[in-house]
Amino acid sequence: MVGKNQIKLIKSLRQKKYRNLHNLFVAEGIKMVKELLDSDFDVYAIYTTDLLILGSIRVPQTLVSEIDLGRMSALKNPSPVLGVFYRPRTMKIEVTDWILALDQVSDPGNLGTIIRLCDWFGIRHLICSPDTVDCYNPKVLQATMGSIARVNVVYRDLADMIKESGQKVFGAFMDGDVLGRSGLPPKGILVMGNEANGISSKISALCDQRVAIPQFGPATAESLNVASATAILLHQIRGF
Amino acid sequence: MVGKNQIKLIKSLRQKKYRNLHNLFVAEGIKMVKELLDSDFDVYAIYTTDLLILGSIRVPQTLVSEIDLGRMSALKNPSPVLGVFYRPRTMKIEVTDWILALDQVSDPGNLGTIIRLCDWFGIRHLICSPDTVDCYNPKVLQATMGSIARVNVVYRDLADMIKESGQKVFGAFMDGDVLGRSGLPPKGILVMGNEANGISSKISALCDQRVAIPQFGPATAESLNVASATAILLHQIRGF
Repeated sequence: MVGKNQIKLIKSLRQKKYRNLHNLFVAEGIKMVKELLDSDFDVYAIYTTDLLILGSIRVPQTLVSEIDLGRMSALKNPSPVLGVFYRPRTMKIEVTDWILALDQVSDPGNLGTIIRLCDWFGIRHLICSPDTVDCYNPKVLQATMGSIARVNVVYRDLADMIKESGQKVFGAFMDGDVLGRSGLPPKGILVMGNEANGISSKISALCDQRVAIPQFGPATAESLNVASATAILLHQIRGF
Repeated sequence: MVGKNQIKLIKSLRQKKYRNLHNLFVAEGIKMVKELLDSDFDVYAIYTTDLLILGSIRVPQTLVSEIDLGRMSALKNPSPVLGVFYRPRTMKIEVTDWILALDQVSDPGNLGTIIRLCDWFGIRHLICSPDTVDCYNPKVLQATMGSIARVNVVYRDLADMIKESGQKVFGAFMDGDVLGRSGLPPKGILVMGNEANGISSKISALCDQRVAIPQFGPATAESLNVASATAILLHQIRGF
């Protein structure tokens, strides 16, 4: 059973301001909930229409009707499991490896795909400018396919972070240099910019090297999608 | 002015069966409509709330109210220009270069991003299995960012196409070999599979080489997004 107030609280978490207020977020789907339970995230509540579906987990689950689950869910076709988790405390960032930084990335699907790419390419820390879309937005979570459980996503001022890190900064620009396979340092910061405007002028000024992905043949397409560009650059950074 | 029947026709084009029936599709946005007008697409009608916004174009435009444009549009925030175009005739495919083939790609955003990638990497022909999402679906068109005007998208049986082509076929698999930078032929067919299930067994059997993108560090992420994987593989194929 779940009360009306609880349903109201969970529905409110679709909005960033309520996620901030309550320090909670909603994760839907068996795989996503399992991956968060297996990681360091603290659980607030698990609602399900089938108490056996998650297998043997050690956290209490609340059995709810399909109708109530549908009321809480942000999905058209709700999964039988909905988890509410506390947002993790910000982990301290130690720059012992490459870090990815996002400057005003605004599309939820792009952020989710980029988190998934970080997981694939072993990038543990993703620093987002405060105006980047919230990583606990339901559409972002959906696109991460569970990778949110393994990537430390931090929102903070990129200029401050860059200055404090003392690392070499590589920014992705349309007019940058082709990233060579040799000569890349073993660690550094890669910055990707906004879908329409690229990297802001403030952060551009802090980039040590401007990198680009070459177009093949006549220049017809205006740009690459930011997640596609991130995929290619992370693949290159990892030396593949 | 635009009549009720015309609005009804245009609204119906959100559905694949009516696009097939009328051989028409809808493109929204100034940039998209301009790119289609600049290419080989034949125009059926252009509706706009501002006759000056497209600049000097040689096709007749119909001035409509914002209310009527909103009725025709599939967008929450309609652009002032909506174009209706004939679907192009299938262009003959000459395998003089690399070709990309998609086996049951189902997400509109993924297909749109892949069309944009083809444009960027100079892949002229994209062959989609008949059960791949329709490239004239409004969400696909939106994600192509106008690149649909420059990529020849053809729906046909992949097995037939592969057999007729006589080309070497590279399929993307989770357990494939890492694609080397050398030894790639100057032309061939790259096949990407469905988001959840990968390449179907029928097409798998026709692949000469199974290629993969290596994961960095411990294998935590289950897979890469199909558009991210396509970005990396096309970048490699082009020898960058």
